[in-house]
Amino acid sequence: MYYIGVDIGGMSMKSGIVDENGVIISSSVIPTDKVKYKTHVKKLSRDILNLIKNSSIDITQIKGIGVGCPGAISPSDGSVHFSNNLGWTDVNLKKDLEELTGLNVRIANDADSATLGELIFGVAKNYKNVVMITLGTGVGGGVIINKKLYEGSLGVVSELGHITLRSGGLQCSCGRRGCYEQYASVTALIRQTKESMKKHKTSKMWNYCDGDIEKVNGKTAFLASKAGDKYARNVVEKYINYIAEGLLDVCNVFRPDAIVLGGAISKEGRYLTDKIVKYLDIRDYGYPGAPRSEILVAKLGNDAGIVGAAALVAEEDFS
Amino acid sequence: MYYIGVDIGGMSMKSGIVDENGVIISSSVIPTDKVKYKTHVKKLSRDILNLIKNSSIDITQIKGIGVGCPGAISPSDGSVHFSNNLGWTDVNLKKDLEELTGLNVRIANDADSATLGELIFGVAKNYKNVVMITLGTGVGGGVIINKKLYEGSLGVVSELGHITLRSGGLQCSCGRRGCYEQYASVTALIRQTKESMKKHKTSKMWNYCDGDIEKVNGKTAFLASKAGDKYARNVVEKYINYIAEGLLDVCNVFRPDAIVLGGAISKEGRYLTDKIVKYLDIRDYGYPGAPRSEILVAKLGNDAGIVGAAALVAEEDFS
Repeated sequence: MYYIGVDIGGMSMKSGIVDENGVIISSSVIPTDKVKYKTHVKKLSRDILNLIKNSSIDITQIKGIGVGCPGAISPSDGSVHFSNNLGWTDVNLKKDLEELTGLNVRIANDADSATLGELIFGVAKNYKNVVMITLGTGVGGGVIINKKLYEGSLGVVSELGHITLRSGGLQCSCGRRGCYEQYASVTALIRQTKESMKKHKTSKMWNYCDGDIEKVNGKTAFLASKAGDKYARNVVEKYINYIAEGLLDVCNVFRPDAIVLGGAISKEGRYLTDKIVKYLDIRDYGYPGAPRSEILVAKLGNDAGIVGAAALVAEEDFS
Repeated sequence: MYYIGVDIGGMSMKSGIVDENGVIISSSVIPTDKVKYKTHVKKLSRDILNLIKNSSIDITQIKGIGVGCPGAISPSDGSVHFSNNLGWTDVNLKKDLEELTGLNVRIANDADSATLGELIFGVAKNYKNVVMITLGTGVGGGVIINKKLYEGSLGVVSELGHITLRSGGLQCSCGRRGCYEQYASVTALIRQTKESMKKHKTSKMWNYCDGDIEKVNGKTAFLASKAGDKYARNVVEKYINYIAEGLLDVCNVFRPDAIVLGGAISKEGRYLTDKIVKYLDIRDYGYPGAPRSEILVAKLGNDAGIVGAAALVAEEDFS
């Protein structure tokens, strides 16, 4: 059996045919039309049908289409309530795509589908209760309970970037203050890096952005820290502590078998996870021999969008 | 069918026979022996068997024994890893009780069993995804996913009193700082009340504890606030805002159909929940028409311990 995965982003829509091993055997990209939803869906369905036609796979071997989409998705009818990135409000993407392609469609928030991708095809294959945290421009989350994606009844679940770290702290776009995302996202790291650089003109961090503070990115502080710069080390340590504080919440709420870290920052690998494990060891819910969640790094990388979306329709074949 | 519910506390062990409507038809209490686990379990099983014998119910009509117990419970084998209140470490309560009574036994943390009680016999009957927060000496939590109690694989889940409200804040007994429990428990309210009273010698709060600060309890600030004292109103408002901040986390993680508030503070009813709903309305994950969780007050009251424990063995009859 084969699964179509569609990764809808603010700039482009990527579609791929994924096999039972989670390998993308064929894919296609078209630009996202933010304004006209109707045009958008028609283009997308044509693109998917062409992708199948141009492959050697018969449409009867396609189980269905999984779509990972930013924003608030309703699990009951597959509609997109609201997606700021796409400018959509209350559109029934599932129904429209099913009518246009004749295939079965399942839609989820992109952080949720990425989590399911890691469970079925990625690093979390052997675990039952899993939480994924995506450290990107924002902080996203997904929750697997008993091998199944948690979607709730009302949708908009697992918004783990919007648990509080500092009640009354930095203003967040979600309406509250002090959200995890304001401290643990790449955006937050860039802000923290710049703040330190402004104070420390001799820091090596300046060397990693050509002396131009506007060129600072999520790697600047990590690179300078690895090169021995003490100011960068402080930035990185404080930043990792913020990440770990949110993970403590995840441990105390779910005590999952594994926590999977995804997004740009997760590429730091052991340099990141060793520090996190150390931080958790001291502070995680405490009594002698208390159970500990494993800290893993996501495996699907650049394929996460398509493969995760495909996992939405593959889920029942693997449960 | 009938269900035995056993509520193990630091002072006493209460057992009851519960019918299919969640009504306790017969009950018994014996003191808790903190030191000797073996003696403890023998006494408990004798008490349970006597309870059945003295009732008009045949033992074949008893589905099993549910036990709500403070501490860290292993869902896989029903052992108590660690219970600070009882002084137990790694005892297999399920196995021992089954051998001594001949009945099927299921054990869970007391906050988890109370949550299941509200789902099956209480205020949350008509909901699918439910989170309960118990505002007592500490803050406890329980999570229902798709009508089933979430227990995880490792145990010690839903420790919702130990999510952070203020990273790096007040030291908590769990090992980390700034936990929800340190701000939203009755213990925290008493501390907050005393702090305000020391600053404000004319506050009416003094009238509600006979002028003796050591007599302050969880009602002092609420009573004085309702009587129009502005200092008490400040204490109560700040305290309720702390509660609501933790509930925002619950909303963003689970977006449950309903949040049930239990414990001593929940007895304030609408005076509490109206303020909470108002706080959440402004700050809960925001876009026009975003879904909202209902805020309910627990219904089982003093029976919650026995009825909740009974719900552990009743669960499969009601799913």
